[in-house]
Amino acid sequence: MTKTIGILTSGGDAPGMNAAIRSVTRAGIAKGYRVIGIRRGYQGLIEGDMFEMNVRDVSDIVQRGGTMLFTARSKEFMTLEGQQAAKRSCDNAGIENVVCIGGDGTYRGALDLSKQGVNCIGIPGTIDNDISCTDYTIGYDTALNTALVMIDRIKDTEMSHSRCSVVEVMGRRAGHIAVNVGLATGATEVVTVERPYNLDDICAKMLSQKATGKTHFEIIVAEGVGHSSEIATYIQEHTGIDTRATVLGYVQRGGAPTCLDRVIAARIGCYAVELIDSGAKNRIVAVKNNKLVDYDIVEALAMTKNYDEHLHRLLDSLSL
Amino acid sequence: MTKTIGILTSGGDAPGMNAAIRSVTRAGIAKGYRVIGIRRGYQGLIEGDMFEMNVRDVSDIVQRGGTMLFTARSKEFMTLEGQQAAKRSCDNAGIENVVCIGGDGTYRGALDLSKQGVNCIGIPGTIDNDISCTDYTIGYDTALNTALVMIDRIKDTEMSHSRCSVVEVMGRRAGHIAVNVGLATGATEVVTVERPYNLDDICAKMLSQKATGKTHFEIIVAEGVGHSSEIATYIQEHTGIDTRATVLGYVQRGGAPTCLDRVIAARIGCYAVELIDSGAKNRIVAVKNNKLVDYDIVEALAMTKNYDEHLHRLLDSLSL
Amino acid sequence: MTKTIGILTSGGDAPGMNAAIRSVTRAGIAKGYRVIGIRRGYQGLIEGDMFEMNVRDVSDIVQRGGTMLFTARSKEFMTLEGQQAAKRSCDNAGIENVVCIGGDGTYRGALDLSKQGVNCIGIPGTIDNDISCTDYTIGYDTALNTALVMIDRIKDTEMSHSRCSVVEVMGRRAGHIAVNVGLATGATEVVTVERPYNLDDICAKMLSQKATGKTHFEIIVAEGVGHSSEIATYIQEHTGIDTRATVLGYVQRGGAPTCLDRVIAARIGCYAVELIDSGAKNRIVAVKNNKLVDYDIVEALAMTKNYDEHLHRLLDSLSL
Amino acid sequence: MTKTIGILTSGGDAPGMNAAIRSVTRAGIAKGYRVIGIRRGYQGLIEGDMFEMNVRDVSDIVQRGGTMLFTARSKEFMTLEGQQAAKRSCDNAGIENVVCIGGDGTYRGALDLSKQGVNCIGIPGTIDNDISCTDYTIGYDTALNTALVMIDRIKDTEMSHSRCSVVEVMGRRAGHIAVNVGLATGATEVVTVERPYNLDDICAKMLSQKATGKTHFEIIVAEGVGHSSEIATYIQEHTGIDTRATVLGYVQRGGAPTCLDRVIAARIGCYAVELIDSGAKNRIVAVKNNKLVDYDIVEALAMTKNYDEHLHRLLDSLSL
Repeated sequence: MTKTIGILTSGGDAPGMNAAIRSVTRAGIAKGYRVIGIRRGYQGLIEGDMFEMNVRDVSDIVQRGGTMLFTARSKEFMTLEGQQAAKRSCDNAGIENVVCIGGDGTYRGALDLSKQGVNCIGIPGTIDNDISCTDYTIGYDTALNTALVMIDRIKDTEMSHSRCSVVEVMGRRAGHIAVNVGLATGATEVVTVERPYNLDDICAKMLSQKATGKTHFEIIVAEGVGHSSEIATYIQEHTGIDTRATVLGYVQRGGAPTCLDRVIAARIGCYAVELIDSGAKNRIVAVKNNKLVDYDIVEALAMTKNYDEHLHRLLDSLSL
Repeated sequence: MTKTIGILTSGGDAPGMNAAIRSVTRAGIAKGYRVIGIRRGYQGLIEGDMFEMNVRDVSDIVQRGGTMLFTARSKEFMTLEGQQAAKRSCDNAGIENVVCIGGDGTYRGALDLSKQGVNCIGIPGTIDNDISCTDYTIGYDTALNTALVMIDRIKDTEMSHSRCSVVEVMGRRAGHIAVNVGLATGATEVVTVERPYNLDDICAKMLSQKATGKTHFEIIVAEGVGHSSEIATYIQEHTGIDTRATVLGYVQRGGAPTCLDRVIAARIGCYAVELIDSGAKNRIVAVKNNKLVDYDIVEALAMTKNYDEHLHRLLDSLSL
Repeated sequence: MTKTIGILTSGGDAPGMNAAIRSVTRAGIAKGYRVIGIRRGYQGLIEGDMFEMNVRDVSDIVQRGGTMLFTARSKEFMTLEGQQAAKRSCDNAGIENVVCIGGDGTYRGALDLSKQGVNCIGIPGTIDNDISCTDYTIGYDTALNTALVMIDRIKDTEMSHSRCSVVEVMGRRAGHIAVNVGLATGATEVVTVERPYNLDDICAKMLSQKATGKTHFEIIVAEGVGHSSEIATYIQEHTGIDTRATVLGYVQRGGAPTCLDRVIAARIGCYAVELIDSGAKNRIVAVKNNKLVDYDIVEALAMTKNYDEHLHRLLDSLSL
Repeated sequence: MTKTIGILTSGGDAPGMNAAIRSVTRAGIAKGYRVIGIRRGYQGLIEGDMFEMNVRDVSDIVQRGGTMLFTARSKEFMTLEGQQAAKRSCDNAGIENVVCIGGDGTYRGALDLSKQGVNCIGIPGTIDNDISCTDYTIGYDTALNTALVMIDRIKDTEMSHSRCSVVEVMGRRAGHIAVNVGLATGATEVVTVERPYNLDDICAKMLSQKATGKTHFEIIVAEGVGHSSEIATYIQEHTGIDTRATVLGYVQRGGAPTCLDRVIAARIGCYAVELIDSGAKNRIVAVKNNKLVDYDIVEALAMTKNYDEHLHRLLDSLSL
């Protein structure tokens, strides 16, 4: 009897999810599996919203943002009844393995489903790079570059007007996007949840740089800190420098994935199928020092991740 | 004695202003004029912040967003004393003609300066396309495409989540950007100041489309209407469809100008120099049916512009 | 009985064709027509490769390059037998009207099909803007901007090395792309089929500019002229300036359409349906001074179009 | 007495070189060094074409492609006389340390200069990622994404016409760009110098995929293999599938650097200054497993790098 792999995407979508779906699908079929696409994450699984995929069903999606399988947050799946219903859907479709693409919330769902006896393999897909067990998450590089391009554009007008821009980037729980794009766009300062900040120090830094000829300024704020408009108002009032806030918002979630996101997605997708084929149970695929590894789901969820304090200090030293 | 042309950019910056500066500078020099770049608009003119430009000073700026001459809003220039000080700056530098790149506010400044005896030629540069006398303003096409690309990205995540996106685009006094990008991105509805709107009608339209299988929605709101977050909340509460607001903001003001903006800037800049060379006084250059024309400043400021109601109706008919 | 509109795309594809397909489909359905998508142009029509489209079939294609209906060149359709077979396909499917999106070759096909008794409406879609009866063709603006972005990138490396770049852009029969992107990117010279050129004059111009401090150069060559490598070699040998050729090629044919291409496509598509609905027979839709008009097919094919000599002279005057 | 750091860029330019120049300059000044920008690589050094840089001289270059210090290949520097002249220039300007940004050729120059008694630190900057001692070179990620975006565009037209595209990407000595963008764009096959290839096998693979419904094909060829047109002709003749070649060329060398290239450039630039400050002599900075390390120049030049055969096999397994 042919063994079967289900695939779903859950939680926030991220560019590169389609490339991962393609990789799992084709690697799975190449190894002799039936592959079932499950729509709208765990909610779609409960409802049996799924279809068998062949190699052509995943043609020409590698360059598309979003997820062809759609995504959703499911309250029903948070209950035991929901999890049992999901298990029944798997049984009905003959699905023994589910590849779950998403973030920590997706992995907690995978853990719940695994307790019902379905083998679950997690793949890291989220733009925030806020999954503890992995150096890298699919979608992160695309989001960095989308934010970068937008900030480069804001700088054009900021320079023309000798202004300060306060730009809020995504990252509810983590400042990775903020500190990287801040460093990459020559920001004056980055404000993240991971490091204490003091608006008066930022104002003093701006005024000190202005005294040496700097005419325009850029402050990057992580979503987790928020309050960009208030920060802009404070800066303007305390420096006298015309200051405007922009919240980049959902733009950062879409777009064609970058080369890195597509290549990592291809690698991770194949790795996930190899794990299944080797008999591994309930693992999370992760990137460590450019190599792929895997962890038990419980173990992965218990890990913690350090903020890249070194990059933040690098930004401090280059912002003159 | 060599005759002299000053150039300044004033008000909000717009992509393509640099291309216009290059065009005026080179066309002016080619016709035997000295060309003086005036920094920071009328404020810089008052302060005498200016420098003579040669053909190489405007090399490699045609592709740059923003304005190499910087821009500012000047309260001082709104006074007679300020205008007289500006006139003295012109006299000191031997400037008989000033090309003023910007919008209606810039033209009102040009009118004031002309009353002091300086010949002023206005060039339309603003992303909003809200200048009455001209079909087209430099920067408009770039802003349209910047907004378009961002909305395309938002659609990726909106589709993945089966959401409604409320996207606020620039245009404080005019809905031109809103209706064009709305039509171009397949928006469900566009909300502008020019046409009355009713949120309940929009909700009803969305529910009716949902009933025929539409899964995601996009509402474009012009800056002049504002309140995007409130609109998003209202829609979500009255349709039950998950709805998120994004304000595209200052990103729309920057970036490398599009081909159209650069070509129009080149054409208009040369035309302005030809006007000066032909002895014309105090004119605004405008685009009418793809041809360049010019109007007296007072006449230009008195004109009114129609909203493109036809495009809005076209959007209505295609949003099914 | 419901009347029926078929749609096909033929000849070279162009960005914005999908937006036009969407517009024709939705406007047609809104007016009570059945709309049939015909795949692979006239060849697909002969083979009966078609399907009825509903409003959702054209969802989320407005931003896609290429054509969802595919395109092909058909030798069979050039014969009377082929044209009769196409007519039989129309009869079998109940198609009385066909909207044909493409260039002059497509219109000649439309003329042939109309002689078999099928009402044909032509829509201008080609990146080269080389259709005589219209100021504008769908896809042209996107191709201009794609070429522009690529040339901007080439300039980065050309400037770093103090080189001359010879860049060949599309336009087999027309230099419109060449002269516009040349003007927009600050090219030293543009070489088109429409205007005689002399490589020695170009070399002399480069050396003269080099003497006044210009360090890098860019020559745009239209595809119709070709021989970019030979031109680069000639320039290098006769100026001593390191010169490299790049042929931009098929990249210029793809990509998400610009705002202008999508808006024009929406407008033209609706106009085509209105023509059909008003009883018009065998017309070509065209853009004249930003307004939509239509011509008899025979009349349209007999027209000739002027090269924009004015833009070329403008480039001459700004290239200093 | 203040110690001094010279900076030069040499060989082919790469996006991110400006970000590295900024990083070296600001980190150097912050540590109390005078920093001298040397124009046009070793040739400019011989000629004494240099200037002292302050922190503002490197403002707003982080996002620019190319190199603000220009680059050149110097025959004169390949002679002992040239190297001695370069040493004299260093002595005249008080330069004890030179940071040399480029590839292997740049490092050989650095080795020659070090033999004259100037401390040289090499930084990897080349789009090809073909430097043996480092996992990563500045400019590589930008080139990958530039090629990717162009190939995505080619795919739009290739799909519309059911064609095969042969696309030649940069990489004279290495297939890294080819295999990564091939994997990322869903190529049918990648042809590199590192792995033997057989055109008949490629044709057979295409025909086999066509039999299972694949309609369009993409073959990526590394510059080192070349002959793209001949390969296209061969494929068309042996498969009957319409095939077109495109050589992406110099476009891949320019453009605003990606986030990764800017962040890596910032990190490496600071690391180079720290090396100098710690008294290290004649080292090459390299990236190994995301960490920065350094090697003696001679040692670095003797290293060899493996082709990523694993990625190539991954592409094989996903191209179905």
